[in-house]
Amino acid sequence: MPVITKGDGVATVINVFTVAPGDQARLVELLTKATQSSVRYVPGFLAAALHRSLDGTKVTMYAQWRSVEDYQRMRSRPDTSPFLAEAVTIAAFDPGLYEVVEVFQPKATQGT
Amino acid sequence: MPVITKGDGVATVINVFTVAPGDQARLVELLTKATQSSVRYVPGFLAAALHRSLDGTKVTMYAQWRSVEDYQRMRSRPDTSPFLAEAVTIAAFDPGLYEVVEVFQPKATQGT
Repeated sequence: MPVITKGDGVATVINVFTVAPGDQARLVELLTKATQSSVRYVPGFLAAALHRSLDGTKVTMYAQWRSVEDYQRMRSRPDTSPFLAEAVTIAAFDPGLYEVVEVFQPKATQGT
Repeated sequence: MPVITKGDGVATVINVFTVAPGDQARLVELLTKATQSSVRYVPGFLAAALHRSLDGTKVTMYAQWRSVEDYQRMRSRPDTSPFLAEAVTIAAFDPGLYEVVEVFQPKATQGT
């Protein structure tokens, strides 16, 4: 499971898929199958979590890679998963490649 | 720090801010200050991580709340942080409220 920390050099990919509410369940299924059957076998893949928006209009993948180069090597492979190929026919997506700049924890109001 | 697991009932908020590259550092500063000085004191706040896109055009906050109600109570407060007020003048944002549907770990190709 992904653990988010600062300064560990991990390359984070956050990909927000926008989808018609009637297609959200299918999109979740396709992205799950693509990750289970293909992406998680790629060298450099560390962890990922798939999120379903409560309003039905988004699905977001949060993925951690050992390095930007590992992620880009996966993206440039010609053998795209058929599940991923179907996913992009029912959803628009906007991926971002990130580094973690800050992590926050709760603070109690008592005791200033 | 956020740990992403499935079935823990956590309400996840993923907020993607789009920004001009020249404003990214300032936006990171404002969102950090808003979270440090205000958001993390709100009951129900569990953890969050702020991410900077490597291309300079996005900043994404990944936040975990005890429940949807806790998050919505924070959003409806009239005393918005001045840092957050300035942040929305330099960035567009698109928040999503999510539940985790699946978590993935790496799998070796050896041994099928």
